[in-house]
Amino acid sequence: MAPEVLIIMGSKSDLPVGQKAMATLKELGVSAEIKVASAHRTPKLVQEIVEKSDAKVFIAVAGLSAALPGAIAAHTIRPVIGVPVSGKVNLDSVLSIVQMPPGIPVAAVGLDRGENAALLAAEILALSDASLALKLEAHRKEQESKVHADSSSIQEG
Amino acid sequence: MAPEVLIIMGSKSDLPVGQKAMATLKELGVSAEIKVASAHRTPKLVQEIVEKSDAKVFIAVAGLSAALPGAIAAHTIRPVIGVPVSGKVNLDSVLSIVQMPPGIPVAAVGLDRGENAALLAAEILALSDASLALKLEAHRKEQESKVHADSSSIQEG
Amino acid sequence: MAPEVLIIMGSKSDLPVGQKAMATLKELGVSAEIKVASAHRTPKLVQEIVEKSDAKVFIAVAGLSAALPGAIAAHTIRPVIGVPVSGKVNLDSVLSIVQMPPGIPVAAVGLDRGENAALLAAEILALSDASLALKLEAHRKEQESKVHADSSSIQEG
Amino acid sequence: MAPEVLIIMGSKSDLPVGQKAMATLKELGVSAEIKVASAHRTPKLVQEIVEKSDAKVFIAVAGLSAALPGAIAAHTIRPVIGVPVSGKVNLDSVLSIVQMPPGIPVAAVGLDRGENAALLAAEILALSDASLALKLEAHRKEQESKVHADSSSIQEG
Amino acid sequence: MAPEVLIIMGSKSDLPVGQKAMATLKELGVSAEIKVASAHRTPKLVQEIVEKSDAKVFIAVAGLSAALPGAIAAHTIRPVIGVPVSGKVNLDSVLSIVQMPPGIPVAAVGLDRGENAALLAAEILALSDASLALKLEAHRKEQESKVHADSSSIQEG
Amino acid sequence: MAPEVLIIMGSKSDLPVGQKAMATLKELGVSAEIKVASAHRTPKLVQEIVEKSDAKVFIAVAGLSAALPGAIAAHTIRPVIGVPVSGKVNLDSVLSIVQMPPGIPVAAVGLDRGENAALLAAEILALSDASLALKLEAHRKEQESKVHADSSSIQEG
Amino acid sequence: MAPEVLIIMGSKSDLPVGQKAMATLKELGVSAEIKVASAHRTPKLVQEIVEKSDAKVFIAVAGLSAALPGAIAAHTIRPVIGVPVSGKVNLDSVLSIVQMPPGIPVAAVGLDRGENAALLAAEILALSDASLALKLEAHRKEQESKVHADSSSIQEG
Amino acid sequence: MAPEVLIIMGSKSDLPVGQKAMATLKELGVSAEIKVASAHRTPKLVQEIVEKSDAKVFIAVAGLSAALPGAIAAHTIRPVIGVPVSGKVNLDSVLSIVQMPPGIPVAAVGLDRGENAALLAAEILALSDASLALKLEAHRKEQESKVHADSSSIQEG
Repeated sequence: MAPEVLIIMGSKSDLPVGQKAMATLKELGVSAEIKVASAHRTPKLVQEIVEKSDAKVFIAVAGLSAALPGAIAAHTIRPVIGVPVSGKVNLDSVLSIVQMPPGIPVAAVGLDRGENAALLAAEILALSDASLALKLEAHRKEQESKVHADSSSIQEG
Repeated sequence: MAPEVLIIMGSKSDLPVGQKAMATLKELGVSAEIKVASAHRTPKLVQEIVEKSDAKVFIAVAGLSAALPGAIAAHTIRPVIGVPVSGKVNLDSVLSIVQMPPGIPVAAVGLDRGENAALLAAEILALSDASLALKLEAHRKEQESKVHADSSSIQEG
Repeated sequence: MAPEVLIIMGSKSDLPVGQKAMATLKELGVSAEIKVASAHRTPKLVQEIVEKSDAKVFIAVAGLSAALPGAIAAHTIRPVIGVPVSGKVNLDSVLSIVQMPPGIPVAAVGLDRGENAALLAAEILALSDASLALKLEAHRKEQESKVHADSSSIQEG
Repeated sequence: MAPEVLIIMGSKSDLPVGQKAMATLKELGVSAEIKVASAHRTPKLVQEIVEKSDAKVFIAVAGLSAALPGAIAAHTIRPVIGVPVSGKVNLDSVLSIVQMPPGIPVAAVGLDRGENAALLAAEILALSDASLALKLEAHRKEQESKVHADSSSIQEG
Repeated sequence: MAPEVLIIMGSKSDLPVGQKAMATLKELGVSAEIKVASAHRTPKLVQEIVEKSDAKVFIAVAGLSAALPGAIAAHTIRPVIGVPVSGKVNLDSVLSIVQMPPGIPVAAVGLDRGENAALLAAEILALSDASLALKLEAHRKEQESKVHADSSSIQEG
Repeated sequence: MAPEVLIIMGSKSDLPVGQKAMATLKELGVSAEIKVASAHRTPKLVQEIVEKSDAKVFIAVAGLSAALPGAIAAHTIRPVIGVPVSGKVNLDSVLSIVQMPPGIPVAAVGLDRGENAALLAAEILALSDASLALKLEAHRKEQESKVHADSSSIQEG
Repeated sequence: MAPEVLIIMGSKSDLPVGQKAMATLKELGVSAEIKVASAHRTPKLVQEIVEKSDAKVFIAVAGLSAALPGAIAAHTIRPVIGVPVSGKVNLDSVLSIVQMPPGIPVAAVGLDRGENAALLAAEILALSDASLALKLEAHRKEQESKVHADSSSIQEG
Repeated sequence: MAPEVLIIMGSKSDLPVGQKAMATLKELGVSAEIKVASAHRTPKLVQEIVEKSDAKVFIAVAGLSAALPGAIAAHTIRPVIGVPVSGKVNLDSVLSIVQMPPGIPVAAVGLDRGENAALLAAEILALSDASLALKLEAHRKEQESKVHADSSSIQEG
C-alpha cells in the first residue's frame, strides 16, 4: 500500500530535518516514505515522483532558494507542506517557501521544523481517520504534561 | 450544517484579505463562515469559537505580532492555515506565523494571500471529496489557460 | 505571601534567560517565582496562572514566534514585560513581542535581556516601595563605578 | 500637582504618535504633559526635564536612531516606555529602542504605538490606583465588545 | 530565425520589467521574444518552451518566491538571467533568485533591472558577435557622455 | 594563450571561494587564472588587469561592501560574474553585488557559490564551444545521478 | 580658489540629497562644488576628478549598490563622507557604504542625510578654521532653540 | 599635551575593537587615549569627558542600541566617528549609529572596523599635518604592495 505521506528533500544534506518529520510520523503510526529529489537538479524526477505517488500529503524540505515545495505544488492539487532549512541567510529559504504566488498554495512551517510538518500532515489525515485524531490528542496531552513537569522541576530545583 | 472552513480575522481591518479567502472558497463551492476574534483582545472568544466549531479547517488572518493562527492551533488538532497581513514591517506578521515552536503546527501562506489559504483549505478537504478535487483540477486548468492567453496577448500586442 | 513578580518561560530551554531575571530580582530583594507555561502547548495553563496569580508584574520569556507575552497580557491589566530569546532568526522573537496590536500593551526588552526585564519590573514596583527605589539607585551607582573602574584598568593596562 | 506621565518626543514631527499617547491617557483620566526634547540636539534639556520631573512614568517617542528612550532611562530609575516612530527603514527605531544594554531597561512598544505606551503607563500606575484599574478593565471590555460587534457586522453584511 | 534572447515572465503583471529588457535588446539590434510562463502555474509549459527554444540566452522575470529563473535553468545549460520584481517584501524575490543551490547557476541582476538583464545578455552574445560588441561600446560611451552632460547642467544650473 | 576565465578576488581571505570556482573550471577543462586585486586598495590594478586581459568572462569574488564586481564591469563590456562572500552580515555583499545601477550589469550568484560562478562562465563559453557544452551536459547528468543515488541510499538506509 | 568641499553624486537623480548638502554648506559659508560622476558608468572620471581636486573633504551621494564613496576613497587619503540614497531596498545603499573593507575608510551618514554630510564636513574643516567653528556652535544653538520653541508651541497648543 | 584622538568604548567588552583603533593610530604616530564611558550607565561621565577633552577627533565604539557616538556628538562640534560592534543582531548597532537625525552628524564606519575609524581620524588630522599625510600615503602603498604580493603568491602557489 502507498505511504500516506511522501517526504521529499532537495538534498541529502537536508536529512536531519527530513528525519525529524519521519520520526514524528512513525510515532503517530502514519505510513511515510522519504526521497531525495531536487527542483533544480532533477526537475523531471520531481514531476515523476509527484505524478506517480499516491501519497495524500507531501512534505518538501529545502534550503537556500527553496523551490522544491512550490515545484511539487505545481504538479498536484494535494496539500504540500514546505519546510525551510537553515543556513547562512535563513530568510532565503523562509521567504522562498512562504511567498508563493496566487493560485498555487504551499503550507510553510518554521525553519528546520520537520516535526511540525509531520504533525500538520497528521492533522490533515486525521480529518478522515478517527484513530489518528486520538493519537494527535494524546500527543498534545503529553506535550502539555511535559510543560507541567518542566515547570515543577524548575520550581523545585 | 456547519461550514467546512472557518475564517477568523484578528481585526476588522483584515477584511480585504479575509474576503479574498471567502470569495475563493465560494467559487469552489466550499461552505465557509467569517468571524472576527482577536488573540489579544478576546482570547476566550477565540478558544470558545474554536472549541464549538465543527469546521474542518481554520483560516486565521492577522497582521503585526500575528498570534491568532497559533492561538487557534493551541486549541485544536484540526489544520490551521495562517495568513500574514502586510503593514509597515511585514517581516513581523510573516515570522510570527511561520516560526511556530515544535509541537503546534500552523500552515503559513504568503503575505495577504487569502486566496491561497482558501485553495490550501480546499486541497485538504478534497482529499475526501472527489467533486471538490475535480473543481480544483479545473481551477488549475483555468489558471494555466490564463497564462497561455496572457502570453499570446503580449506576443501579439 | 504572593511573590511580586512572576516569571513565565515558554519552554524549559529558555531557563538561562529566565534565571538572569530571577537572579537580578533576588539581588534587589524582590520576591519572585519562575514557571514554565506555553502559549501554544498549554494556553489554558497560561490563562489559569495569570488569573490566579497575585503578582504585580509578569515577565514572559519566549523565543521564535514568541506569543507568550501577548497571551499573558490578554488575560491581565497588570504590566507584562516580554523578553525575546535568541535563536536562528532573532528578528522573529523580537518582532513578535514588540509589534503588539493596539489595545494590549507588552513592554519589550532586548534579546536575552532577562536582567533588564527584572530591573524594569523593579522600577515599576519601586514607584510604591521607597526601599526598593534606594536599592535601584545603589545598583545604578555600582554600575557607574564599574564603568569608572573599567576605564581606569584599561588606561593603566 | 505634577502630571503622572511625561511624554517626551524627540522631534515635533513625532507629534501624531505623541498625541495618540496623550489622548489615551486623557481618556483614562491620567494626568499627562507633552514636551519636545532631543537626545541629540538638546541632551542637557533631556537630563534637566527628567531630573526635575515628578512624573512617575516617562513615555519617549522617537524615530531613526532613537536614542531618546535610553537617554531618559540613563537619568532615572522610574519606568521609561519607548515608542519607535516609523520612517524609511523602521528596523532602525525598533532596534535602537529594544536592544538596550544590560543595566538600563527601556520598555519598548510597537512602531507608532502611542496608545499602547499610554495603556502600559496606565497599567503601571494602576498597581497603586484602584480606580484607574477599574477604568482599564472597562477599556478592555469595550475593546472586547467592539470585536464582537465587528464580527456580527461582518457576518450579517 | 530563432530570436537570440527569450524573455519569460512569471506573470503578465511583470510586463513593465519585461518590456525594459525588450526595449534595450531592440535598441542593440538583438533579436528577442517575450512570453509568459509560470514555474508554478504552468511548469510543463516552462519546460516545453525551454526545450524547444533555440534562444542562446534566457531572461526570466519574476516576483515573490521567484522560482522561474531556477526552473528554466533546471532545463538548460544555456545562460539564464534572473530579474527579481519588486513587491511588498523585495528580499523575497532577490534571495529566491540569488541563492541558487550548487550545480544550477542563475545570473541575478538587480530588482526590476530589466535593462541590465538585456545588457548582460548582449554582453554574452557579443563574445561571438563583433558588431554587437561595437554597439555595446557605443552604448557605454553614450552613458558616459550623459553623466558628463548631467554634471555640466547641474554645475551651470 | 590567454585563459578564458579570469577570477579576481578582492582579498586573499576570499581564496576558499575563489578556489571552488577554479576547481570547477579545471574539471570542465576551461582555462582560468586567479588573481587578487582590490577595488578599494588597488583600483588602478583592477582597471589594468581588466583592460589587459583577453579573458572572455570575469569572475569577481568579494565580501562586505563588495564593490569589485561592479568595478570590473565598469571597465569592460565582457560578462562579469559576482560572487558575494559570507561574513557577519551577508546581506551586505549580496546586495552590493546584486543591486547594480542601470547600465552596468553584473551577474550575481549565491553567497560563497564559487562553483556556480564557474558553471555560469562555462555556460557562457559553451555557446560557441560545442565540446564544452557536452561536458556541461555530462556534469548535469552526474548531478542528476547523484540525486538518484542519494535517494536510494536514504530509502535503503 | 578651489572649493573646500566637493560633492559628487552617482546620478542626477540623487540631486535632492546633493542639494541638501550644498545648501547647508552655503549656509555655513563653506565653499563647495557639486558634480555628477558614476563609479560604474564613468570610473575614470571619478578618478580624474578626485586626483585633480584640491577639495579638502569629499561628499559622495549614491543609491543602490552605492560604490561611489568607496571608489572616491580608493583614490585619496582625504576624508570621504558617504550618503546612502533611499530606494526600494534601503539596506543596499546603507550597507554598501558602511561596510567598507579594512584599510579604506568611508564616513557614512544616514539615509538621504545630505545636511549631516555637510555638517560633518564643516566639523572637519572647523578643526583649523575658528570662524567656521563659531558658525557651527551658532547652528547648534539655533537647533536647540528650535526644540525649545517646538516644545512650547505644543504645550500651549 | 592632549592626545589628538580620544577613543571611548561603551563597555570594556568592546576592547578588541577599541584596541584595533589604538594600534592603528600608534602605527601612524597619532597620539591617542582610550577610555570606557557608557551613554546609558554614565551619561554625565560622557558629557564631562567630551567637554573637558582637547582631542580633535572622537572615536566611539559601541554595540547593541549603540547610543554612544550620538551622545558624544550631542556635546561637541568636533568630528565623531562611530564604530558599531557585532553581536547577535548586528543591524542594531549599525543602524543605531548610521541613522542619526538631521543636525547632529556621526561618521559611521563598518562593523568592528576599529582600524578604519583610526584611519579616518588620521585622514582628518592629516588635512593640517603634512607629515601624517605622508604616513597615510605610505600606509596606502603598503596595502597596495600587499595585494600584489598576495596575488603573486596565489598564482605561484
